[in-house]
Amino acid sequence: MAKKPWGGRFGQPTDKLVEEFTESISFDRRLYRQDIEGSIAHCRVLAEAGIISPDEEGRIIEGLNSILADIEKGRFKFPAELEDIHMAVEQELTTRIGKAGERLHSGRSRNDQVALDLRLWLRNEAGEVTGLIGELKTALVEAADKEMGTVMPGYTHMQKAQPVLLSHYLLAFREMLDRDEDRFRDCLKRINVMPLGSAALAGTGLPLDRKVAARLLDFPAITANSMDAVSDRDFAAEFIFASSLLMMHMSRLCEDLVIWSSGEFGFVEIADSFTTGSSIMPQKKNPDVAELIRGKTGRVYGNLVSLLTVLKGLPMTYNRDLQEDKEPLFDTVDTVKACLAVLSRMLGNVRFAGARMLAEASRGFTTATDLAEYLVRKGVPFRQSHEIIGRLVGYCLAEKKELQSLSLEELKNFNPAFEKDALSVIDPVKSVDSRNVIGGTSRKQVSSAIRKIKGRSGK
Amino acid sequence: MAKKPWGGRFGQPTDKLVEEFTESISFDRRLYRQDIEGSIAHCRVLAEAGIISPDEEGRIIEGLNSILADIEKGRFKFPAELEDIHMAVEQELTTRIGKAGERLHSGRSRNDQVALDLRLWLRNEAGEVTGLIGELKTALVEAADKEMGTVMPGYTHMQKAQPVLLSHYLLAFREMLDRDEDRFRDCLKRINVMPLGSAALAGTGLPLDRKVAARLLDFPAITANSMDAVSDRDFAAEFIFASSLLMMHMSRLCEDLVIWSSGEFGFVEIADSFTTGSSIMPQKKNPDVAELIRGKTGRVYGNLVSLLTVLKGLPMTYNRDLQEDKEPLFDTVDTVKACLAVLSRMLGNVRFAGARMLAEASRGFTTATDLAEYLVRKGVPFRQSHEIIGRLVGYCLAEKKELQSLSLEELKNFNPAFEKDALSVIDPVKSVDSRNVIGGTSRKQVSSAIRKIKGRSGK
Amino acid sequence: MAKKPWGGRFGQPTDKLVEEFTESISFDRRLYRQDIEGSIAHCRVLAEAGIISPDEEGRIIEGLNSILADIEKGRFKFPAELEDIHMAVEQELTTRIGKAGERLHSGRSRNDQVALDLRLWLRNEAGEVTGLIGELKTALVEAADKEMGTVMPGYTHMQKAQPVLLSHYLLAFREMLDRDEDRFRDCLKRINVMPLGSAALAGTGLPLDRKVAARLLDFPAITANSMDAVSDRDFAAEFIFASSLLMMHMSRLCEDLVIWSSGEFGFVEIADSFTTGSSIMPQKKNPDVAELIRGKTGRVYGNLVSLLTVLKGLPMTYNRDLQEDKEPLFDTVDTVKACLAVLSRMLGNVRFAGARMLAEASRGFTTATDLAEYLVRKGVPFRQSHEIIGRLVGYCLAEKKELQSLSLEELKNFNPAFEKDALSVIDPVKSVDSRNVIGGTSRKQVSSAIRKIKGRSGK
Amino acid sequence: MAKKPWGGRFGQPTDKLVEEFTESISFDRRLYRQDIEGSIAHCRVLAEAGIISPDEEGRIIEGLNSILADIEKGRFKFPAELEDIHMAVEQELTTRIGKAGERLHSGRSRNDQVALDLRLWLRNEAGEVTGLIGELKTALVEAADKEMGTVMPGYTHMQKAQPVLLSHYLLAFREMLDRDEDRFRDCLKRINVMPLGSAALAGTGLPLDRKVAARLLDFPAITANSMDAVSDRDFAAEFIFASSLLMMHMSRLCEDLVIWSSGEFGFVEIADSFTTGSSIMPQKKNPDVAELIRGKTGRVYGNLVSLLTVLKGLPMTYNRDLQEDKEPLFDTVDTVKACLAVLSRMLGNVRFAGARMLAEASRGFTTATDLAEYLVRKGVPFRQSHEIIGRLVGYCLAEKKELQSLSLEELKNFNPAFEKDALSVIDPVKSVDSRNVIGGTSRKQVSSAIRKIKGRSGK
Repeated sequence: MAKKPWGGRFGQPTDKLVEEFTESISFDRRLYRQDIEGSIAHCRVLAEAGIISPDEEGRIIEGLNSILADIEKGRFKFPAELEDIHMAVEQELTTRIGKAGERLHSGRSRNDQVALDLRLWLRNEAGEVTGLIGELKTALVEAADKEMGTVMPGYTHMQKAQPVLLSHYLLAFREMLDRDEDRFRDCLKRINVMPLGSAALAGTGLPLDRKVAARLLDFPAITANSMDAVSDRDFAAEFIFASSLLMMHMSRLCEDLVIWSSGEFGFVEIADSFTTGSSIMPQKKNPDVAELIRGKTGRVYGNLVSLLTVLKGLPMTYNRDLQEDKEPLFDTVDTVKACLAVLSRMLGNVRFAGARMLAEASRGFTTATDLAEYLVRKGVPFRQSHEIIGRLVGYCLAEKKELQSLSLEELKNFNPAFEKDALSVIDPVKSVDSRNVIGGTSRKQVSSAIRKIKGRSGK
Repeated sequence: MAKKPWGGRFGQPTDKLVEEFTESISFDRRLYRQDIEGSIAHCRVLAEAGIISPDEEGRIIEGLNSILADIEKGRFKFPAELEDIHMAVEQELTTRIGKAGERLHSGRSRNDQVALDLRLWLRNEAGEVTGLIGELKTALVEAADKEMGTVMPGYTHMQKAQPVLLSHYLLAFREMLDRDEDRFRDCLKRINVMPLGSAALAGTGLPLDRKVAARLLDFPAITANSMDAVSDRDFAAEFIFASSLLMMHMSRLCEDLVIWSSGEFGFVEIADSFTTGSSIMPQKKNPDVAELIRGKTGRVYGNLVSLLTVLKGLPMTYNRDLQEDKEPLFDTVDTVKACLAVLSRMLGNVRFAGARMLAEASRGFTTATDLAEYLVRKGVPFRQSHEIIGRLVGYCLAEKKELQSLSLEELKNFNPAFEKDALSVIDPVKSVDSRNVIGGTSRKQVSSAIRKIKGRSGK
Repeated sequence: MAKKPWGGRFGQPTDKLVEEFTESISFDRRLYRQDIEGSIAHCRVLAEAGIISPDEEGRIIEGLNSILADIEKGRFKFPAELEDIHMAVEQELTTRIGKAGERLHSGRSRNDQVALDLRLWLRNEAGEVTGLIGELKTALVEAADKEMGTVMPGYTHMQKAQPVLLSHYLLAFREMLDRDEDRFRDCLKRINVMPLGSAALAGTGLPLDRKVAARLLDFPAITANSMDAVSDRDFAAEFIFASSLLMMHMSRLCEDLVIWSSGEFGFVEIADSFTTGSSIMPQKKNPDVAELIRGKTGRVYGNLVSLLTVLKGLPMTYNRDLQEDKEPLFDTVDTVKACLAVLSRMLGNVRFAGARMLAEASRGFTTATDLAEYLVRKGVPFRQSHEIIGRLVGYCLAEKKELQSLSLEELKNFNPAFEKDALSVIDPVKSVDSRNVIGGTSRKQVSSAIRKIKGRSGK
Repeated sequence: MAKKPWGGRFGQPTDKLVEEFTESISFDRRLYRQDIEGSIAHCRVLAEAGIISPDEEGRIIEGLNSILADIEKGRFKFPAELEDIHMAVEQELTTRIGKAGERLHSGRSRNDQVALDLRLWLRNEAGEVTGLIGELKTALVEAADKEMGTVMPGYTHMQKAQPVLLSHYLLAFREMLDRDEDRFRDCLKRINVMPLGSAALAGTGLPLDRKVAARLLDFPAITANSMDAVSDRDFAAEFIFASSLLMMHMSRLCEDLVIWSSGEFGFVEIADSFTTGSSIMPQKKNPDVAELIRGKTGRVYGNLVSLLTVLKGLPMTYNRDLQEDKEPLFDTVDTVKACLAVLSRMLGNVRFAGARMLAEASRGFTTATDLAEYLVRKGVPFRQSHEIIGRLVGYCLAEKKELQSLSLEELKNFNPAFEKDALSVIDPVKSVDSRNVIGGTSRKQVSSAIRKIKGRSGK
């Protein structure tokens, strides 16, 4: 068993079980690039402060780069007994370049080192996630553009409510994703702060220039309090929360896709290549992708609870509990990226059944509100007109009629204010176009929204 | 039983059990002011569009204001069978002013109405919460200023790590609260968007000018998609998340206060007026406030999970499940405000035991790192100096000595590079002052941080 | 401000803000009956041990009973400055009967007292909840009995899978509830243990016979370790977990009811008295009850997370954080009882559309598996027969045919093993009856299951 | 790309991205043994029913056993494009033995197959977990036995409350673990039910004898409803919940161990082999194991939330979301087992500082309650004696005295009922022994508890 780099005061070697229990290298080696990038910057700062010589600086950087190259080529063996990525890299460095390697950790602790690595890693992933959100937004807008004019029943309580444009429905999800993107950007401001120089908790005792490190690593800001800096994992929790809402939004779209794929709805057909079958039932074609995205929402929620629980009631400053920050964060990033990518691609492989949607939008009294608003325009107080149309619907149910099949006489029986033009407001397409306020579902508003979005993104 | 305002098509009255199960007026009446404020704005928009006459407008506004006045004076009886605050106010309005009241709900649905009420209410509460965060930040800075120079042991893993300033410790929490404030402000941008005009889900069919409503209600933006607008509760979830991190931060401070209040630590004495006793043990004086704040973190986490669970996998657009958004949000706001207020006040009633803190900071080898860094400055590679000092600590443990009691000869036995000045780096106060980088715990850095903060807040 | 009963050592009165922040009487007064019941038993034990005289015993019991009577009649004012129900009752007792009241708390602490109260209260509620589960089970079995023979499409992935009996579907939920009941019963074993005598944490120093208290309060067991007894809230967490699964089961039934209520499915019609309408859309009839039950699942999940968070990492033994146990528990009990009651009643107000269900069960190739199994019985390996029928379904899709409309010749084109009797396995009713294993959906199995259940419950 | 076993009706191959997104073989291959064991039983049932010939039966079993052997020897390559362990094994079987392999899936679906695999796996793991709980219980009792007589301060609110035996403290955790064990056993009853024969959801259409399968696989019961059987994951959620409470209990012990390891408490010294050091601070010796166990509680809580979220509101019966059941369950089992094992072992590597504990138990007025109870025995009502001793403590605080240093005269100044023997109740050891009720901390009670436990377990 290798001597521990911190073993000076210890009289016994670490118990094998403890070593296995406490190691993090099996998962934190994912941070190898950031760890090396951060060490190179730290090494430059040490050199600038005269703690190491230019020659040592050169050898350290060369050594670190050679380790990086080996890891990327899959030629590096991570030794479990070295606990974590930081020790593994440092030890290997010393093996490769000798004594100079033993100087690298001057004025630094794993506490500020891991905070740095995690922030470097996450700011990059935040960029990838917002990029993928952008792709999904584009996929939604493309679909909205293509389906412009398709009328579907809008639902509240899963009951037909009013006719809407399918494009309007799709753009609603774009709005959600817009907020998600905003939240990730807001989070990024708080990720993108440089903690190096905080050392164990009190700040480094060597005269290091933290601003140089920030500049080398392209951070716009540095942490203002060393005790906070080594114990802060807010940015990780915030990232997982932003991911939770993003997953929730995708889960809502997927819920609809699953229901719409049922034979009873028949609103969408997902391409064979985006569905799977059954081991026993030969006819089955299942919307597995949508179901899995919906299910994976639980996974990200769980990660959020996991990290929040870890952080609750921790005494200051760094405690080993914080090692449990990485796996939920890594899993969240992987989950969110996979879901975004597959959902974007699936949207292009969904066929919307426009005729079926329109047929359903024409049934179920979806334009009852239009009739009520017709009466309002004729001067009937809304609460009365609501009551009148409610009774009219009751009449239709008893007579097994749809609104479309009513005669003007029948309408007049319910209120004399009805005139010939009343029959026209019953039409779902007219209904859609009448909702012509900002944010409304009229073709005019929705087309304009699409044009505006496309204009903004320069397409 | 009163006729339901939506009862036109219904052949049976609502079951009594269902009425009780579905009512929300027992809690949503808290939104009465926002509901009336929103209705007044809606009424003005209706008048501007010519849907109601100037005379009707006047009577509606007068009626709403009289209801508001009665509610504020506790003279209003909320009728449970009217389901919710929206119906209760509208019905009462019609009772008071007659037919004009029946026109108020034209072009509006409870779906956009409740979204508006909740946003109006929450943006106000967000302001109150950030105000209270500001007070707690001030209390921390005042304490930091007052305790300037008090040296305490800094901990990692609850083990003495390095001496730090108590003021530095206190300012660490100020940093956390700063981020909390930022998060609430970011959230406020997403709260502060006007949904009225979205109606049930498709946008209103009446020619209402949504920008006027936004202007009257002082909203900088309006929602861009009606389907999204009536189903969006992101802002509520985000607010509860920001509150979760805020509670977590307070729970960490309280955890330390509880431990520091123990006889074994004896670092703080909380005033009698901020503690309570035991029903059986006459000597007890318990830090109940700190414990309860720590415990209430669970409550807010629970509220977050509650709302996230409600939202997951909901089909578009509004579903009655969304009624479950209010109680967790209300409870979160109440909890966070109470905790902030009582903690701010308690901080002024805590006496820090400076002498005891310094005594403990002088024990337990807290300046071992300073000795190691001393050797680094003498040219010893850090990894070696760490090993040397580790063995030195082992020697002290065996000899039952503290670092302060070592002679230069003893030091030299471990490494010849030690010279006379080595003895001075062992002093905790010198150790503190040596950590003189931005964000470090030296008196210079911490004083400067306090001055900067006080300067910024104009005090 | 009243002198605190524990105020002897305190030099200052409690801060007003602290008093408000720490009080629990606003919610724990719900335990008044259990508190008094427990105090009466404790008083008897004190008398038996000679700590109080028979006369004092008599006066205490009489005093407690008079307080109980006043509370039940709504004639008792709970004073907020007395913190909690325990202090409020004790203080009032002393006001009413004088000095004897000051002896009641001998050998007892609020720590064991509140543990007792909560266990007494919860074991009673556990009984009520299992009773309500029983009612819902009965409602399901009644519905299953009434609908015996109704064939519906069974779904996996929301895609039609195989025909099943509606009764079989309903009994599936009865199975879930059976497990829920089991879990509550298992939990009850752990609730039903008597903690009195544990005092603050070390056990009472007075010679009290704990077995007498257990007998008087009808507990089958007493706690075996005083430190555990005052800090144990496992039973509360377990109760909330059992409630979480119960809510989850109800949420699944409600999800189906909501989807089945859609116009597209049209499988159920919920009575007008169990639905509500829209403030704007006159035609709407919404399955609000089902939606709310689904939503309230989030509430109970949140309560579980809340309590688990409170308990995590608490030092031994009692900490004030534990005061946060009651509200999530109370809310869970109220929620679960309300949902069970309203769902049981709603089931009797749902009309299942048998003809529509059968029609849908006859579409969508639901008997493809039967055809595949037909070939297996003819000696074709299952994996091949699955492939053959898969291609047959593809043929039907291309030709826009259902399985029922295929001729024997068409079948034979896919495999020569098909004979005349193949056409009969396509019938959904035959398919149902062919699944005649224990737990299968054949009419024989399902009828027998209903008979067995009804026999067991003696109906 | 291999043809999918369910691909008959599909016109396009599965998209590569979809294949990656939906595969589960990367984690469900952990169930290979259970999958093969279940398939062997299913094969026997098929043979018994005459669906396959004795010869085919023999070849299938031989083939499956050879696959099992290869997997165990690490000689099996799991093909990712085969989605899951079930398909991978079946396909390989057919490759090895030809056509007979294609008959194995007759009358079975992956839906009942995976339910079986998971139950087989989890009932075994439940046994392992209860075994490890037993080991931790033994470690606690051994420590309690060894430390018999060590007196420590008992705490409430982290404030010294009353002297207790360290053994009593340790046995409190044994009680918690006892309940944990009970909960796992209760859960096992619900795991141990045989689902095979439920097929996709409706029950198998082949005449298979489910009781034979149950007998072969050693299940005491079989599932009673096929639709419930394929959608039930209660047992997994219940297992994770039982694990959550178990982790919570361990987190509480670890919280104390961390605090007790601080220099200020100094109650325990964990062996060097069970601690780790710092990369920067040479003196550090951190209780990492205890911290990590505390932190990993969050992980298991997160897994619970994850699965509960997945299950909420799922329509019947099987949905692909359920694939998300495995990873949280696997992770929970791994976490719980690792924590139990390392904590058991660590307990034997902790040295309790008895003298320090006794010294602290003698400070801080820990026997104030004993003095109050002394007065009760002299006839002073408890509420008065509490007040008297409260004032006495106030006097000591002002005079900077401990109770032990008071003279009889000083006592008498507070109440004339004090006599000479009062001084003896102040002794912490006497205090401990006076708490001589069942479950109390007296040496008599605690010794007897240890003897009883050791007697029961036959040691």
